[in-house]
Amino acid sequence: MDFSNVTCFIAGDQGCWKMINNHNISGVPLPSFDCLEITQEKNENLKAAWILKGVSSNIRYTTKDEIDKLKAIQPGLGRPEATLSAMIPIKKSEEWWNLAQDERRRIIEDQSGHIKEGMNFLPGIARKLYHSKDLGQPFDFITWFEFAPEHEKAFDALLSFLRNSEEWKYVIREVDLRFRLNNLSF
Amino acid sequence: MDFSNVTCFIAGDQGCWKMINNHNISGVPLPSFDCLEITQEKNENLKAAWILKGVSSNIRYTTKDEIDKLKAIQPGLGRPEATLSAMIPIKKSEEWWNLAQDERRRIIEDQSGHIKEGMNFLPGIARKLYHSKDLGQPFDFITWFEFAPEHEKAFDALLSFLRNSEEWKYVIREVDLRFRLNNLSF
Repeated sequence: MDFSNVTCFIAGDQGCWKMINNHNISGVPLPSFDCLEITQEKNENLKAAWILKGVSSNIRYTTKDEIDKLKAIQPGLGRPEATLSAMIPIKKSEEWWNLAQDERRRIIEDQSGHIKEGMNFLPGIARKLYHSKDLGQPFDFITWFEFAPEHEKAFDALLSFLRNSEEWKYVIREVDLRFRLNNLSF
Repeated sequence: MDFSNVTCFIAGDQGCWKMINNHNISGVPLPSFDCLEITQEKNENLKAAWILKGVSSNIRYTTKDEIDKLKAIQPGLGRPEATLSAMIPIKKSEEWWNLAQDERRRIIEDQSGHIKEGMNFLPGIARKLYHSKDLGQPFDFITWFEFAPEHEKAFDALLSFLRNSEEWKYVIREVDLRFRLNNLSF
């Protein structure tokens, strides 16, 4: 099996991102660690506290109109000013996954405004979504965010908005991990 | 990584299903073989001609209304009279996967009638879809079908309908493998 499309989030004692907060939101916590390495290489770090995996896949809910709006304003990862990051693995309930496509889309957007509200935080917050469910992973998704320190409060407001949404009633496990770039002098 | 959710289609010299046809429709062919074993076990058969893997995942396009109609008439796998089967791995183009969710849904159903036309072949044809793309596999999907010999012509008509659809313009690799139950005396 070719797993070159899999991204590994390796929690251990080395990596570009220094852990500054491990906040359990719901379900079983993740053990704490020092640093996070994000890699597509197969050579797994055996000293890892844990490894979570995901694939960047095709769009599942976003419409053409929404994509056009997003593409016009969304930033890429790796901006020099984005010295803070967050990794948010979540798992949704069986009830969620048993819903039809139109039912899930209705909850995500019509009832929760996930895409529309998220756009209000662009271009400050860069975001990349990884799918983990079909890999048999303990979480269904990993979302990775990067932002400059002046956007941290806005990021917290976005998470607060989402966690109070109808969609989040289906989230049964969530961890909020925060990082700063490891090579910075403070 | 937990791969207990992965189903392996193992082409080799043993298995429940005897290969009776290996018809390449488009793209690179698959080598021929004697028998097909379908298993969720991790112990891979090293003598295999090839192994393809997929996961049974959540619904990606079907609406609640369509699911309700499907559930009322669709048969399960393993019916004693369903002594014939087909395995159809397909791969779609990058162009397809770069479309938005609403664009893909429109092509699949509004323009191609995939779900509606498929219902006309129920309850004769049992079907199970496996997703392979996010596993880094050479095909994006594997669809498995089981039917009684008297429904073989209808099954061929269904495939012919789909292969002439707008959706199939995005299919860049397809193999049509046919089987009969291995334990039958002829």
